[in-house]
Amino acid sequence: MRFNGKKLSVSVFGQSHAEAVGAVIDGFPAGFRVDREALAAFMARRAPGQGAHTTARKEKDEAEFVSGLADGVTCGAPVCVLIRNGDTRSGDYAEQRDVPRPSHADWPAFVRYGNAHDVRGGGVFSARLTAPLCAAGAMALQWLEKRGVTVFAHILSVGSIRDEALDPVKAGSGERDRIASHALPVLGEKTAEKMLEEIAAARAEADSVGGTVECCALGLPAGIGGPLFEGMESDLAAALFAVPAVRGVEFGCGFGAAGMRGSEHNDPYIVEDGQVRPETNRAGGLVGGMTTGMPLILRAAFKPTPSIGKEQRSVSLSRMEPVSFTVKGRHDPCVVPRAVPVVEAVTALVLMDRLMDAEGRKTGNE
Amino acid sequence: MRFNGKKLSVSVFGQSHAEAVGAVIDGFPAGFRVDREALAAFMARRAPGQGAHTTARKEKDEAEFVSGLADGVTCGAPVCVLIRNGDTRSGDYAEQRDVPRPSHADWPAFVRYGNAHDVRGGGVFSARLTAPLCAAGAMALQWLEKRGVTVFAHILSVGSIRDEALDPVKAGSGERDRIASHALPVLGEKTAEKMLEEIAAARAEADSVGGTVECCALGLPAGIGGPLFEGMESDLAAALFAVPAVRGVEFGCGFGAAGMRGSEHNDPYIVEDGQVRPETNRAGGLVGGMTTGMPLILRAAFKPTPSIGKEQRSVSLSRMEPVSFTVKGRHDPCVVPRAVPVVEAVTALVLMDRLMDAEGRKTGNE
Amino acid sequence: MRFNGKKLSVSVFGQSHAEAVGAVIDGFPAGFRVDREALAAFMARRAPGQGAHTTARKEKDEAEFVSGLADGVTCGAPVCVLIRNGDTRSGDYAEQRDVPRPSHADWPAFVRYGNAHDVRGGGVFSARLTAPLCAAGAMALQWLEKRGVTVFAHILSVGSIRDEALDPVKAGSGERDRIASHALPVLGEKTAEKMLEEIAAARAEADSVGGTVECCALGLPAGIGGPLFEGMESDLAAALFAVPAVRGVEFGCGFGAAGMRGSEHNDPYIVEDGQVRPETNRAGGLVGGMTTGMPLILRAAFKPTPSIGKEQRSVSLSRMEPVSFTVKGRHDPCVVPRAVPVVEAVTALVLMDRLMDAEGRKTGNE
Amino acid sequence: MRFNGKKLSVSVFGQSHAEAVGAVIDGFPAGFRVDREALAAFMARRAPGQGAHTTARKEKDEAEFVSGLADGVTCGAPVCVLIRNGDTRSGDYAEQRDVPRPSHADWPAFVRYGNAHDVRGGGVFSARLTAPLCAAGAMALQWLEKRGVTVFAHILSVGSIRDEALDPVKAGSGERDRIASHALPVLGEKTAEKMLEEIAAARAEADSVGGTVECCALGLPAGIGGPLFEGMESDLAAALFAVPAVRGVEFGCGFGAAGMRGSEHNDPYIVEDGQVRPETNRAGGLVGGMTTGMPLILRAAFKPTPSIGKEQRSVSLSRMEPVSFTVKGRHDPCVVPRAVPVVEAVTALVLMDRLMDAEGRKTGNE
Repeated sequence: MRFNGKKLSVSVFGQSHAEAVGAVIDGFPAGFRVDREALAAFMARRAPGQGAHTTARKEKDEAEFVSGLADGVTCGAPVCVLIRNGDTRSGDYAEQRDVPRPSHADWPAFVRYGNAHDVRGGGVFSARLTAPLCAAGAMALQWLEKRGVTVFAHILSVGSIRDEALDPVKAGSGERDRIASHALPVLGEKTAEKMLEEIAAARAEADSVGGTVECCALGLPAGIGGPLFEGMESDLAAALFAVPAVRGVEFGCGFGAAGMRGSEHNDPYIVEDGQVRPETNRAGGLVGGMTTGMPLILRAAFKPTPSIGKEQRSVSLSRMEPVSFTVKGRHDPCVVPRAVPVVEAVTALVLMDRLMDAEGRKTGNE
Repeated sequence: MRFNGKKLSVSVFGQSHAEAVGAVIDGFPAGFRVDREALAAFMARRAPGQGAHTTARKEKDEAEFVSGLADGVTCGAPVCVLIRNGDTRSGDYAEQRDVPRPSHADWPAFVRYGNAHDVRGGGVFSARLTAPLCAAGAMALQWLEKRGVTVFAHILSVGSIRDEALDPVKAGSGERDRIASHALPVLGEKTAEKMLEEIAAARAEADSVGGTVECCALGLPAGIGGPLFEGMESDLAAALFAVPAVRGVEFGCGFGAAGMRGSEHNDPYIVEDGQVRPETNRAGGLVGGMTTGMPLILRAAFKPTPSIGKEQRSVSLSRMEPVSFTVKGRHDPCVVPRAVPVVEAVTALVLMDRLMDAEGRKTGNE
Repeated sequence: MRFNGKKLSVSVFGQSHAEAVGAVIDGFPAGFRVDREALAAFMARRAPGQGAHTTARKEKDEAEFVSGLADGVTCGAPVCVLIRNGDTRSGDYAEQRDVPRPSHADWPAFVRYGNAHDVRGGGVFSARLTAPLCAAGAMALQWLEKRGVTVFAHILSVGSIRDEALDPVKAGSGERDRIASHALPVLGEKTAEKMLEEIAAARAEADSVGGTVECCALGLPAGIGGPLFEGMESDLAAALFAVPAVRGVEFGCGFGAAGMRGSEHNDPYIVEDGQVRPETNRAGGLVGGMTTGMPLILRAAFKPTPSIGKEQRSVSLSRMEPVSFTVKGRHDPCVVPRAVPVVEAVTALVLMDRLMDAEGRKTGNE
Repeated sequence: MRFNGKKLSVSVFGQSHAEAVGAVIDGFPAGFRVDREALAAFMARRAPGQGAHTTARKEKDEAEFVSGLADGVTCGAPVCVLIRNGDTRSGDYAEQRDVPRPSHADWPAFVRYGNAHDVRGGGVFSARLTAPLCAAGAMALQWLEKRGVTVFAHILSVGSIRDEALDPVKAGSGERDRIASHALPVLGEKTAEKMLEEIAAARAEADSVGGTVECCALGLPAGIGGPLFEGMESDLAAALFAVPAVRGVEFGCGFGAAGMRGSEHNDPYIVEDGQVRPETNRAGGLVGGMTTGMPLILRAAFKPTPSIGKEQRSVSLSRMEPVSFTVKGRHDPCVVPRAVPVVEAVTALVLMDRLMDAEGRKTGNE
C-alpha cells in the first residue's frame, strides 16, 4: 500500500477507525524546511466537515510528525506523519459485515481478507486514507514550488455541470488564483454555484453524484520520463487510480484524441525566445512518455459516492438471501470537491519522484 | 523499461533498427508447455504488413526462444525471446535527427539522451517494441486460459465510427468468436467495413485517425487486488499507458460514471446459484481496487498516428528555425487494429501476475 | 530504509531522539492473532538497561500498534507500530556535530546529509532503530512458529571467548531451551560467565569488545530460493548487514569452506524415513541459493562498539584541526547480547517473506 | 534473477545448455562508448579453458550486443548482450536427473521446479551464468574508471595457501598492476606458484579446493550509502552471495573485528591536505552503511567445487535408495581464479548503481 517511486516512497497505513492513519515518506531530501502552516492549509482542503456539500464527520486532520524532522527541517531519516482518528462512531457500521454495500469494497474485501477485514468505516478502503497522501503530497508540492514547478487542479465537472477547461498552452498561476477564489475550486465565475446546486439536488434525493478533476503542472523541464513502462503516464495513472473512486484517467486530449485526425492532433514545433517548443499542446505535455516542457494536463473521473441514503438492494451474507437496506453513517454526496487536493497530492508525488530521478541522470561521458 | 509485477517481470529491450527487439520474462512458472503455434498466431495479429490499413513494412515477427525452455516447456529459468529486425531502411530517417516530427518522441528524446539517441525508426520509442510485449503476453494468455481466465479485446471506435460495446454482464466466449470472424476485430456485423473506410479516407488524405480499444477479462475470481496502490486499476493502467499512443484508460463506466448519480451507478448484490455477485456491472469488475468476479471491462484511447503524409511544420534543431517537411517512411494510418493484441497482452501480463500473487496469499492461521 | 521483501515489507522510521521510532509492516497476512505478551518479551531481550553489560539508558521499548490490528488480529491493512523514545538526554550530544566520533556514522552522515543530519544520539544511524525491526521480527517469528519453523540464535563469541557451535544436523528445540536458560544467550554451561567477564574487563578499561552471533532456522521445507540474485543467502545477508555493526556474514562452513577440499565439504545425500536429505550439513541448509530442508545455519560478526570511554583522536570539523576527546553518553561495552534477538528478527523477516512467496508458486500446468 | 539496483538493473537469463546466456542491462546512461576490446579481455579472465587449473570446456565467451548500442555508444535503450553456448555435451548429464550431485543445486532444484528443471550442465544454476554478469560488470568498470573509481580483486587464499592482504590504506593502482602480472591474480611474488600447486594437488586426487577473493574499490567519494537497509554492505553482500559458491562475505576487518577491542578497531580521524579522513581503515571504507572515502575492502569465501572425480554417495531419486557414483563432465578443481573477475563485476555493478543514485541526490533547498 505504498507509492513506490524511483527515489521517493510513501508507505500509507491505517484504517478509518484505527487509532490513526499516516504515512512514512522515505527518500525525501535532507535539509528541506517544511512549511507546516501551508501543509495544514492544504490538508484542510481535503478535511471533512467544511460545508453542506461534504460529510458531517468532523476531523481536524492534524499532521503529527513523529520522525524525520529536526528543528522543522527534514534530516534525511524517513518522515513518519500521523493523523489521529478522532470522531469515529463505530456503532454505525454493525450491519455492514453482513450486508455488503453496493459498489463499496465491502464484499471483495470479505473475499480477500475474510472476517479479519476491519469493516468499521470501510477500514483500509476508506477515503480517509487519502489524508496521509495529502500530507506527503503537501511536502512534495512545496519541494516542487522551490524548483519552479506548480501543480494545481480544479473541478472540471460535477454531474452535468461543466467548468471551463484549462488552456493547455496558456494556463498559469493566474488560473490558480482564480480557482482559489471561488466557493469550490473551479475556474468559471458561475460554475461553483451551479455545482453546489447539483450536489444539493443529489443530496435532496438521498443520492450522490460523480465528477471529474482536471490537474495541470507548470514549469516542468522537457525530457523527463522514458519509453514503455518508464513513461510518465504510467506512473501518474498508477498513482491516480490508487485514489478511491477514480474510474478513468486521461492526458492531453485523452479520449477525445481517439476521434481526431493526426493533422488535428499533432503539435507542430516552433522556436520561441530561442527555445524549441510545441506550438499547441494537445499532448498535454507528454509525448513518448516524456515531458515536453508544456503544461502537463490530466483529468481523472470520479464515480458518484456509493454511499447513498436511498434504499438499495444487497444480500445478507449470513443468510444468503436478498435484503433491502439503507446506508447509514455520514457521507459526502459528492467526493469531487475534496478529491481536488488528493489529485494534486498524488500528481506532485510522482512529479517530484521523477524529477529527483532525472536530476541524477547524466550522460555517460560527463 | 520493465513490466515489474509482483511475481512476474518482463524486461523489454531493443530499438527499431537494432539487431533485434526482445524480452526477458522472469518468474514464469516452471513446467508450462508453450503453444508455439498459438503464440505465433497471436503475434501475427500485431505484425505489420497485413493489409491496406497497416504499414508496408514487412516483418515476420518470429519469436526465437533463446533461453527458459527445455523441450518446449518452461524450466524455471528466465525466458529470453528475440524478434529479429529484418526489413529496416535506415536511410529513411536521416532528416529526423535535425527536424523532430510533431507529436513523436524525437524531440523529448533528444533532450533526454542527447545525440546518443538512436533515432533510426524511432529507436526505443518505436511501436515495434510492442512485439516482445505480445510474445510475453501470449504466454500469459495461455497460462490464464488454463486457469479459466479469458482475455480478449475489440476495436470500440475508429475516428467517428463506433462498434457495439461489450455487454458488461453477459460478455462471453461467443463475443470472442464473433470478433475473430470479422475483417477487423469488432463485434458489429458492419462495423469492420465502416472502420476500414474511415481508415482509407484518412490515408487518402495523407492523414491518420485515432480510436479506442475495449478489453475484457472473463473468469477472474473475486478478491484479487487491494487498497490504494495495491489496486488492480493502478497496475492495469500503468501497463496500458506503457503502450505507445495511449492517451486515456478507463474501467467500467469510466468517464461516463462522472456524469451519473450513485443510484444509477451502484451495482446491487444478488444471490445466484448460491453465489453472491453484483447484478449489474457498471464497475467493470473492479470495486475498491479488487475484482468482483464479474467481467473486467476496460477501455484505452489511442491517438491518431503522428506520422502523416501531409506537410507539417517543425523546426531545424541545428539552425533553430522553422521548416516545413513531410514525414517519410512507411506508417499505419491507424494504429488501433494492431493495438488490439497489445492491449490483450499487457492486460494478460497484469492479470497473470496478480493471480500468481494471490494464489500465494493465505490468511494467517491456516 | 525498508526491508523490501517479495511479499512482506517493513518500512522503518525514526531517529534516536525523535518522538518515536517505528515501522510499517505491509503484506502481513490478515487473520493472524499477534501474541502481544510474547512480542513484548522478545523486545525486552533487545531493550537496554538489562544488566551491567549494557547501556544505562532506560527504555521500556513498548510497542504501540497504531494500525493494522482489529481486536488484536491483523486485518490486512499495514501494521504501524510505534516505540516512543523516552529517556533521551539530548544535551549529551552537543559536541558531536563538530567532532565526529571514530568509526561512527557521524562523519559520512555529515557528508551525505550536511548540517540537516539529526546528530542527537546518532539520529537515524542509532542502534535504537533495531527496536522496530524486533517488533516486526517478533510477528514474523510467531507466524513462522505456526508453520513449524523455529528461528533462534546464540552468542558464538565475545572477544576471545567462544561458545559451542550449533550442531548443524541435530540442532533442535533443546538447544533453544538451553540458550534461554543462561545469563547470556549461549549454549555452553560456563560460557555466559566467561563472556560477562570479558565484557566487564573491556568496560573496566573504558573499552568495548566485539563478537559473533550464530543463528539457525529449523523446519524449513526444501526448495525455497532460487538462482543468482534469487538466492536465500542474498536476501539474508542484505538483511543482516542492515543491522548496525555487522562486518561479516557466513553460511554453513562459511569462511572455513575456503580452506576445505570438496571431498571434505560436500554433503552426501541419504534416504531417511523415506525422505531424501543431506547426511551432513556443511552447506548450512543452503545449496544453489535454495533450502535443503536441513537446519539453516548462519553467523554474523559484530565489531566492538565504537563508543568507548578511552580518549580518542578525531578532528574538529569547524577548525579542521586534530582534537582529543572522550565519547560521552551511555553505551554498551558490547552490542552482541542485545544483537541476538535482532539477528533472529531479520532472519525471520526474510524467511517469512520467502515462504510466503513460495507458497504461491505453482508449476505451470497445475 | 535480476540485479535490481536503484538506477541500474541487470536481468540475467540462460541455462548452461540453452542457446545462449545473456543479460539485459537497463538504466545504463546514454552516450557511453563501450570499449569492446577491454570488455572482451575482461570476459576472457572468466572464460574457461585457460589453463591446467580450469575446466576443459572451451567457450569463447564472446559478447554479442543485440540492442542498446548505436555506433558502439549506449543510446539509452536497454543493452541486451548474448553469449552463445557453444561446446555443450548434453550427453554427460543423463544420470544427473536421477542422482543429485552432493552440494550441487540439483536436488533442491528438483524440489522447486520438478521435472521441468533443465538439468543439463546444471541449467540455470550453472556458474556459466556469471558470464553475462561479467559483460555487464565490464561496462560498469569502464564507467567507474571514467569517474576515477578503480575496482580490482585478487585471490587471497586457495586452500591453505594465503596471498598478502591488500593494505587497506595504501592500496593503489600499483597493486593492480602487480596482480595482473602474475600467472594467477595474486599480490605475492611466489603465491601464484604455490596456489597452482595446491590446485594441482587437489586435481591429482580427483578432488577440489576452495579459497577467498579480496576486492577493493579506490576513489569512491565519502557519503555514499545510508542507514539500515540502505547500507552499501547490504547491496554488496546481496550481489556477492548471488555468485555461485560464495559462503561468506566480510568488509574491513570482517570476522576479525569480532575478536577486537574498540580501541583497536576504531579509525581515528585526521586532517590531511585540508581533507578529513580516517587515519586507518579497519572499517574497509564503510561506516554506518556509508563510504568514508577510504579504499573499500571486502572478501568473499568460495567453497570447493562440489564436482569432484572421487566416488561419492548419493541417492537414486527414482528408486529411493543409496548409490555410489562419480561426477562426470569437465569441472574446475578450483573456481577461485575464474571467480576473481566475477567478484569485480558484481562489486562494480553495485558501486555504479549507488554512485548514479547519489549523483541525483540534492539537499532540499538547492
